[in-house]
Amino acid sequence: MTAGNQSKPIGIFDSGLGGLTVFREIVNELPNEDLVYFGDTARVPYGSKSKDTIVHYTDQILSFLKTQEVKAIVVACNTASAYALEELEDRVEVPIVGVVKPGAKVAAKESKNGKIGVIGTKGTIRSGLYQKYLKEYRPGAEVFGKPCPLFVPLVEEGLWDDVLTRTAAARYLKELKEAGVDTLIMGCTHYPLIRPLIREEMGEDVLLVNPAHETAERMKEVLELWELNRDPAVPRSDAPYRFYVSDDPESFRDFASKILTFPLPLPEKIDIEAY
Amino acid sequence: MTAGNQSKPIGIFDSGLGGLTVFREIVNELPNEDLVYFGDTARVPYGSKSKDTIVHYTDQILSFLKTQEVKAIVVACNTASAYALEELEDRVEVPIVGVVKPGAKVAAKESKNGKIGVIGTKGTIRSGLYQKYLKEYRPGAEVFGKPCPLFVPLVEEGLWDDVLTRTAAARYLKELKEAGVDTLIMGCTHYPLIRPLIREEMGEDVLLVNPAHETAERMKEVLELWELNRDPAVPRSDAPYRFYVSDDPESFRDFASKILTFPLPLPEKIDIEAY
Repeated sequence: MTAGNQSKPIGIFDSGLGGLTVFREIVNELPNEDLVYFGDTARVPYGSKSKDTIVHYTDQILSFLKTQEVKAIVVACNTASAYALEELEDRVEVPIVGVVKPGAKVAAKESKNGKIGVIGTKGTIRSGLYQKYLKEYRPGAEVFGKPCPLFVPLVEEGLWDDVLTRTAAARYLKELKEAGVDTLIMGCTHYPLIRPLIREEMGEDVLLVNPAHETAERMKEVLELWELNRDPAVPRSDAPYRFYVSDDPESFRDFASKILTFPLPLPEKIDIEAY
Repeated sequence: MTAGNQSKPIGIFDSGLGGLTVFREIVNELPNEDLVYFGDTARVPYGSKSKDTIVHYTDQILSFLKTQEVKAIVVACNTASAYALEELEDRVEVPIVGVVKPGAKVAAKESKNGKIGVIGTKGTIRSGLYQKYLKEYRPGAEVFGKPCPLFVPLVEEGLWDDVLTRTAAARYLKELKEAGVDTLIMGCTHYPLIRPLIREEMGEDVLLVNPAHETAERMKEVLELWELNRDPAVPRSDAPYRFYVSDDPESFRDFASKILTFPLPLPEKIDIEAY
């Protein structure tokens, strides 16, 4: 990294819209940073697809972010973090942070009874990566992984407070409650959007971990470590936040406005298969 | 078409697994024909994606099917039929049949009161193609289109007879019942898998149209018209049914075995982006 890199943006990507919950945490934690977001809306969801496919898609996205000259990368998608990060991190020349490790670290630290639940897509749970890190950070921990494949479509339908979502939650979370977990990792970027409903189901005493928040904190540490913080004295670009998608920009912006509190510029559509 | 084309297979494609409900109807209707199926499992679902993206994906799949030397093509996916068929049909040199037109034709013919419901993905309903053909085949028909976006994930989770699917069905179908439709087109290949539940909700008197069946009949007519029927006297190839997918072959076969009644060969994974 040469001098001047501080002014470059951080790249953030996700399979689609869910990563905006990570984006908003990074805006809060690092308000001086320019950000580039890519959502792979033409190929969403990633959660039920194979490791090979997710590695291939992630590889293309990393190539795209390289053309955006990002100084650091956040893999905001849990499935991509779980399946592709270890595979691909050597391939990028900038620091790269996924959501799994920071989420696992805080859960391992905060759990009192060592019984930790993880909910996520089929891919995230099947990968076993949360489980692996949790046991590394807290030897002896008992980890209960539970895929919740209907949560993503329910959230994307806007049914954040609806009997359908509540019925699905009751079903998915039953065994985690019965196992007596005192900490639950919301291991998919969509899930914080139904946090109140998960809270209701799990009860007040269970700690809900949103890895998005811990990931933003981790990115802050990384920028300091690499001396990559943007100098707030340097005037900001006209477009500090840029958005790219692989499918229709308008529908992305419509949904995004439910998650972000500021008006979004229209995303630019790119041909991700070309990378 | 030159002589000898009769022995070539028919190509069938879908965004994923749902098209197997069309495949099985074609097996029933045309037992002598060889078939090649492609399921775009790496990019599934199509239902909420934009027209541009669906046209692009369909274009790639048509290029792939060309390499398989098919003598005719069935677009088994309603969303692809609705968004891409009119756009792309001139580009292929073999007869091509979608599911929308045959489904609309029989519904227009069979409805007594001229009130016809169509359920499908957001894309299929938004395209307005069922609505257009219904009004063409039956001027004066009243058409009620209703997107049912949760049906596909619910079916893919195997919840074919489940309170979640029943609750979603009650919600989606309410306005169609209230509108007094006497005919309902199941305008997505996944929906015939929850036919009993749709039947329960709509009551015994409503005609449920599965375009898969009408599509198979239409393909039979087309083969006769073009003199493309396979000669049953010519010995069959060792692999009369071949399957290709863009994601993991094993999980495709697992699900497919719930829909088809014969053991499937393991599908071959192809890189659809390369076409």
